[in-house]
Amino acid sequence: MVVYNPPMRKVILGFGMTLDGYIARRDDSVDFLTMDKDSEKVMMDFFATIDTIIMGRKTAVASAKLQPEADLPEMPGIENYVFSRRWKPGKRKGSTVVNEPIAGFIKKLRKRPGKHIFVTGGGQLGRSFLQADLVDELFLGVAPILLGDGIPGFPAGFPQRDFKLTECKQYATGLALRYDRVRTKKSPTKGR
Amino acid sequence: MVVYNPPMRKVILGFGMTLDGYIARRDDSVDFLTMDKDSEKVMMDFFATIDTIIMGRKTAVASAKLQPEADLPEMPGIENYVFSRRWKPGKRKGSTVVNEPIAGFIKKLRKRPGKHIFVTGGGQLGRSFLQADLVDELFLGVAPILLGDGIPGFPAGFPQRDFKLTECKQYATGLALRYDRVRTKKSPTKGR
Repeated sequence: MVVYNPPMRKVILGFGMTLDGYIARRDDSVDFLTMDKDSEKVMMDFFATIDTIIMGRKTAVASAKLQPEADLPEMPGIENYVFSRRWKPGKRKGSTVVNEPIAGFIKKLRKRPGKHIFVTGGGQLGRSFLQADLVDELFLGVAPILLGDGIPGFPAGFPQRDFKLTECKQYATGLALRYDRVRTKKSPTKGR
Repeated sequence: MVVYNPPMRKVILGFGMTLDGYIARRDDSVDFLTMDKDSEKVMMDFFATIDTIIMGRKTAVASAKLQPEADLPEMPGIENYVFSRRWKPGKRKGSTVVNEPIAGFIKKLRKRPGKHIFVTGGGQLGRSFLQADLVDELFLGVAPILLGDGIPGFPAGFPQRDFKLTECKQYATGLALRYDRVRTKKSPTKGR
């Protein structure tokens, strides 16, 4: 019997942030994150490699509040999950609300064949993924701005995680960086 | 009479940081910042363009504590200033301790011809320079690491400052980024 082994579905944590690491102003606005044609193309190419988007409740609320539906790109074939301890699990506005430990959820997703899994929004859910060492890749946009205050993309409170830069693209509106997680015996606990 | 107008001495704020914006661990160690031949060359080329290094007391103490003197590059022709409200102004271990408002100090430095002025260490002194909008350029090394906790390079508490990426170099050990300050009528207060 021939067994088909699909390539592992990677978990890619990604968001746009300022040089001082903020993903939004204190009022959730993200007006400082702008796109040009080149960076839009990179985003669309990236979206072609994923079929799952995971975000936290706060990111979901902020996105819904701030981006009129017309501005959201059409993403057929992409499943959206929102992790929340507050909302009722199940379908909600084109997403599926999930309230379960992330490690088990990702394990289940990875058992099914599919494209990569995009965890976006940073903040608390991103931290949970980093705590559990579930992040295989980072995909970061860096806007050429110091905001001086805001909502951090990488809030403190997880062990050191080492990466390797695999891609660096330069645009008028910023940088796009990709990193692969480098797992060694020492690194998961080295920083604590 | 011919008046010689030397080019303006720029204030360049720079340091090495992790992807989550830390310049040191909580214990001041910076073991995660490594250099290879290429990045060392970039640093040496950079040092050839400056003749003044300014840092805060904490950075001065951390540097002295952690780096054996033999590891410090020889930098003839470079004047070192340490800003401190605690230490007595005047000469101290190859540096000059300064306790005066930074804006006036920089104005005086700029009246004298010379090379660029490097403000290093980030943290609180960097924030004071950003508050006073004295930073003309950023020179950042970005290590491919998430530290999860540490001393922030850009602690919150200054108005939004916009920049333009002018250089992006990629090494095995990280990225070197240079940004020019973009001053528009709106940007100094836009973020607050």
